[in-house]
Amino acid sequence: TVRTYIQGEAKEPSIKTQIPGPNSKKLQSELNAIQLSDAVQLFVDYKKSLGNYIVDVDGNTILDTFTQISSVPVGYNHPEMLSVFNNEENLKALVNRPALGVFPGDYWPGKLRDVLLAISPGLPNVTTMMCGSCSNENAYKSMFITYRRKTRGENIDFSDLEKDSCMINQPPGAPDLSILSFHGAFHGRTMGVLATTHSKPIHKLDIPSFDWPTAPFPKYKYPLEEHLRENDEEDKRCLAIVEDLIETYRKKGKPVAGIVAEPIQSEGGDNEASPQFFQELQKIAKKNGAGFLMDEVQTGCGATGKFWAHEYFNLESPPDIVTFSKKMLIGGFYHNVDMRPQQPYRVFNTWMGDPGKIFLLEASLKVIKQNNLLENVNKVGHKLKKGLIQLEGEFPELLNSTRGRGTFLAINAASPNLRDSIIAKMKQKGVLMGGCGDLALRLRPALIFQEKHADVFFERFRNVLQNIDK
Amino acid sequence: TVRTYIQGEAKEPSIKTQIPGPNSKKLQSELNAIQLSDAVQLFVDYKKSLGNYIVDVDGNTILDTFTQISSVPVGYNHPEMLSVFNNEENLKALVNRPALGVFPGDYWPGKLRDVLLAISPGLPNVTTMMCGSCSNENAYKSMFITYRRKTRGENIDFSDLEKDSCMINQPPGAPDLSILSFHGAFHGRTMGVLATTHSKPIHKLDIPSFDWPTAPFPKYKYPLEEHLRENDEEDKRCLAIVEDLIETYRKKGKPVAGIVAEPIQSEGGDNEASPQFFQELQKIAKKNGAGFLMDEVQTGCGATGKFWAHEYFNLESPPDIVTFSKKMLIGGFYHNVDMRPQQPYRVFNTWMGDPGKIFLLEASLKVIKQNNLLENVNKVGHKLKKGLIQLEGEFPELLNSTRGRGTFLAINAASPNLRDSIIAKMKQKGVLMGGCGDLALRLRPALIFQEKHADVFFERFRNVLQNIDK
Repeated sequence: TVRTYIQGEAKEPSIKTQIPGPNSKKLQSELNAIQLSDAVQLFVDYKKSLGNYIVDVDGNTILDTFTQISSVPVGYNHPEMLSVFNNEENLKALVNRPALGVFPGDYWPGKLRDVLLAISPGLPNVTTMMCGSCSNENAYKSMFITYRRKTRGENIDFSDLEKDSCMINQPPGAPDLSILSFHGAFHGRTMGVLATTHSKPIHKLDIPSFDWPTAPFPKYKYPLEEHLRENDEEDKRCLAIVEDLIETYRKKGKPVAGIVAEPIQSEGGDNEASPQFFQELQKIAKKNGAGFLMDEVQTGCGATGKFWAHEYFNLESPPDIVTFSKKMLIGGFYHNVDMRPQQPYRVFNTWMGDPGKIFLLEASLKVIKQNNLLENVNKVGHKLKKGLIQLEGEFPELLNSTRGRGTFLAINAASPNLRDSIIAKMKQKGVLMGGCGDLALRLRPALIFQEKHADVFFERFRNVLQNIDK
Repeated sequence: TVRTYIQGEAKEPSIKTQIPGPNSKKLQSELNAIQLSDAVQLFVDYKKSLGNYIVDVDGNTILDTFTQISSVPVGYNHPEMLSVFNNEENLKALVNRPALGVFPGDYWPGKLRDVLLAISPGLPNVTTMMCGSCSNENAYKSMFITYRRKTRGENIDFSDLEKDSCMINQPPGAPDLSILSFHGAFHGRTMGVLATTHSKPIHKLDIPSFDWPTAPFPKYKYPLEEHLRENDEEDKRCLAIVEDLIETYRKKGKPVAGIVAEPIQSEGGDNEASPQFFQELQKIAKKNGAGFLMDEVQTGCGATGKFWAHEYFNLESPPDIVTFSKKMLIGGFYHNVDMRPQQPYRVFNTWMGDPGKIFLLEASLKVIKQNNLLENVNKVGHKLKKGLIQLEGEFPELLNSTRGRGTFLAINAASPNLRDSIIAKMKQKGVLMGGCGDLALRLRPALIFQEKHADVFFERFRNVLQNIDK
């Protein structure tokens, strides 16, 4: 018997108009009068959407494998999620949003402990924020603060020169430190983290930035098991450049205070690196006194088949910092005690997160646990990956390089145009997909995506591929 | 007859323990095991708090004149706010949080128009974000993008050199542009906006920054009407330095793409500048092709007695951008069409705000309108200001420089220690106050703060002042 996670979910897509249909087009022109809306694909009726299916404003029912850029953990309108604010405490915590760093509610330490620390990747502290960019920005600040504390000497006060110079953005108070990041990385769009984002020019054009080191991220040949030697050499090549850059930037007077990487580069094209690569990278960070940050904003919360993707890497110790957002619903970062500032108001802002979101996270974690959704992700992910590899075999001129873990999967199209065309055609057949990098189709379904949904996906995908003009 | 905005509100403070009391201390030690919690003042029971009064976990009832760092518009547990998510559409918009830039809900253009644009300060476009820092970061990006578009030439494509160089953080793609800000300013804590924050060293120490120009903000003598000539000269002095800095940074190869200022510098000490100052500042921005941004994150939403504080300045045209957050509950910025990027994904992120917050804003705006709360703010603000000036007269060695508009008021203590001591003693008497800058006590009550609350405040304040050891 096939388990159904949400009663009443659609059995298959149902398409009544072109997408976007007339109602979406009308709303888009209203929105465009108020703000640039060129990225909008369609308008959704969130009252009618359910489970893995969204219903748009033209009555089209669409299987969603992209889930709001990978940020819906347990599908639309899950009854557990809808009931969260029936509870008086939860509702009043949402409506009376406190400045959590100064006047937290009585519930706050307990929720941090029972909800967030219960799923911590081995790190004892957690600091909440509002989104992925903000989480990474504050994680970088923590790495700078820790690096300077060690350079200055533990328990040494700030000098007057530091206090005065920082106020006009000059060293030594505002020191020339850097964060090492990777080509293809995406860590957000505010100006600090944007300096470490290198996925697409359109994100960075016209915005001033920092002279910080950028290393190559491994580019693997697929299937992995047939290219072990080349891929291993690729790891070594990239790691050697990381070490060179750390030395170069030290000599340049911009020492590397931290290294940031995604377990799988997502926005940049679903680029994987091996456990060995990350093990060595962490060792390089330690050797050079730099913090090691795993950005799990997109990979976290179960989609790879483990709760945190870096659990696959068997690191010798947890990363110094792990950032999260998206499917976690609340932003923030786990960190070790070394990364904890020793003075208040340094990693701080008015709201410091949003209690309303931690109650939603609590409900979604309950759903994940009660339904063994990580097991579901592994089972469905296995089927999806096998199916993608089979399609590669059937359409070798169109598809290649299936990769990923759990349902966090990608496959490359032979060209950017083909990739975009597949996404467009899949949408007209009632399946919403996302792209990333230049060539990749990325799967980012909710954790309740089942084998039956995979069947619907593959039926449509095969049909689209059969009808591509070659 | 005195109108009561919230039925059942406490009549006066009631203090049962030292603050923080034993329950707050216990929770603080639990929190401190999870994150640095040195800034926490007390833990609040948000179920019991009502109107202008918070109730802490030790049963103390405290009049709140600081309201979560100025971010509670209509008091705690207002019935209109508590009923927002009884509505199915609102609840489902909250729980099914979309990627608003790609798959917005059917309700979204209407809410932007009917809620946000209905209170726009004369600007036709609005872009939502999640907090004040993020709003300013994206506003700066808009100013950089617009500045470069004009320099490059309208409708000219990005060059390959720009596309390649931006990916490694180098000009011309990542150009050496700057934002001019003011000493004493606070525009947030992520790394771009932190480069324009100059209120306190602790916010900036150890964080790398940009070499951007910082001008002096006027420092006025009070009472204003007795120092017209000096203060006018102070305006001219500061404006002359602004013009010099723009020229200096142009020659330095870091042209000023935008000027950012708060209508009243809040975190930096409630520093005011005159309408003439802002009129001239806007002219200087226009003359130099720089954007003009008014940061109304703290001043917006009615507390100054006008909905936007810069309405007092009679500017010849609206600012190019006005940012908001805090009492507006949702973050974002109003902007003119000139500041609108012409390509998608440039001012973008996963969530682009949070629909749950716009429904709460809608309810609070309804309360503000139905109860004429701007009129209330002006009436109560008049009483508060008069009372503060009277206290200056009674305690000239302790207090000076009463200033501000509406209930957005401040008064200086004679020394930083005295300021901190007054805040501590007021708390023990059941009145929560905030400080800013080195010397200022700042009042930031909710818009439902009435004359009867002012009476309670002054009774306690006078008593504290009478018992200061001189």
